[in-house]
Amino acid sequence: MITPRLTLVGAGPGDPDLITLKGIKALQDADVILYDALANDSLLAYAKPNTPSVFVGKRRGSCAFSQEEINQLIVENAFKYGHVVRLKGGDPFVFGRGYEEVEFARAFNMPVAVVPGISSSIAVPEMQLIPLTARGVNESFWVTTGTTKNGDVSKDILLAAQSSATVVILMAMSKLEEIMTLFSEAGKQNTPVAIIQNGTTEKEKIALGTVTDIAEKARKQGLDNPAIVIIGEVVALHPDMVVELVERERLNYEYNR
Amino acid sequence: MITPRLTLVGAGPGDPDLITLKGIKALQDADVILYDALANDSLLAYAKPNTPSVFVGKRRGSCAFSQEEINQLIVENAFKYGHVVRLKGGDPFVFGRGYEEVEFARAFNMPVAVVPGISSSIAVPEMQLIPLTARGVNESFWVTTGTTKNGDVSKDILLAAQSSATVVILMAMSKLEEIMTLFSEAGKQNTPVAIIQNGTTEKEKIALGTVTDIAEKARKQGLDNPAIVIIGEVVALHPDMVVELVERERLNYEYNR
Repeated sequence: MITPRLTLVGAGPGDPDLITLKGIKALQDADVILYDALANDSLLAYAKPNTPSVFVGKRRGSCAFSQEEINQLIVENAFKYGHVVRLKGGDPFVFGRGYEEVEFARAFNMPVAVVPGISSSIAVPEMQLIPLTARGVNESFWVTTGTTKNGDVSKDILLAAQSSATVVILMAMSKLEEIMTLFSEAGKQNTPVAIIQNGTTEKEKIALGTVTDIAEKARKQGLDNPAIVIIGEVVALHPDMVVELVERERLNYEYNR
Repeated sequence: MITPRLTLVGAGPGDPDLITLKGIKALQDADVILYDALANDSLLAYAKPNTPSVFVGKRRGSCAFSQEEINQLIVENAFKYGHVVRLKGGDPFVFGRGYEEVEFARAFNMPVAVVPGISSSIAVPEMQLIPLTARGVNESFWVTTGTTKNGDVSKDILLAAQSSATVVILMAMSKLEEIMTLFSEAGKQNTPVAIIQNGTTEKEKIALGTVTDIAEKARKQGLDNPAIVIIGEVVALHPDMVVELVERERLNYEYNR
């Protein structure tokens, strides 16, 4: 007797230890796993021996499968094997098209559950000791992809640039200069910015700067997607920025003596 | 030989299985644990036998310790025992004053690490099948406490109300009507709103409505903090809202026949 059902599981931002216990339990219970390129492949080892797994992710920008094909694969595998675990990078409901998979599966009347994952939007700056909120510095954070479905820069960025929010932009590298111009026009030329590529993994790279100079710094350091851009006064709390500030104050002090 | 150091660990939103494997490993390595009321007490069982633990959280709004006292306790315990694990509800760097603890410990030159936790801001709506982003619906989400350090409603709310962002407000119940008035003035009277109290736990309660009627619904259902308010078109994707919509369309159809 096969009982088709679907559990979306967030694999977290890269470090395989950033999966939740609930996610591990779902993998242990899986009859089949459909997984992304973003998820760490070592997580598949939690499954029962001989559990089939299907790679459905994107590599180098080209899709193995379209979203419609992934939806179909979820339903087909659920009716063939039973419990489908759909392992997705980060959190399944943050820019992951996870809801489309839930909606499609529910149309076939199968039970659906979602296991949250650690979102790179919060965790990647956090593991660099940049908090998205800090008391007395800001009261909110705003997370966006920076572009609309059509590839234009989102109008929300203009509003975000006027707020006190820490702004976190995912997949923004191709529009970086355009986005920094918007922040500059909102009077934020000197607001600190960090760009972190491959956060929480061994390949992690970071650039620190301001709205004015971050694009050039990122180019010099060869940073590219998958990267996270963090714009806001909290970036100045990064240990390297603090050291730089203390050093600048020391030099100023010595110069003025 | 005692080597003082600090690891902040996010315990997640309530369900004890929503801690990360990295968080469990930190607890297993702890020489002493300082924990909040928000974290699930059962997580303390991951520690080595006889690991001392100190409750430093808030209960019924009254603090066992001030933030300054907690900072002191971290440093004292680190010099006394070695590895302090500071277990905090949700994510340590999302409105948790976690950065202040990091900063204080670093002033004593001890190594500091942060293990991200599942943030209730994303996970609580998610486990109710409300995605913070959905393709074609919105391009961003914005998380705030709704009030500034002085207790005023944040000006950022006005900007957020004009955007396509899903707005998530933590600890907002005391300012609920004031906040809904701002959204109403931004032309969002009919935008769907969900309020979820004690999300991901057995005591979970939810109210669904619109900017216009949610305050009354929440009052009738007796909802109060700790609650999360979600404002945005994505709330209409909640299964009960979808059923209500289908039902309304069915009734309309039958009525018009």
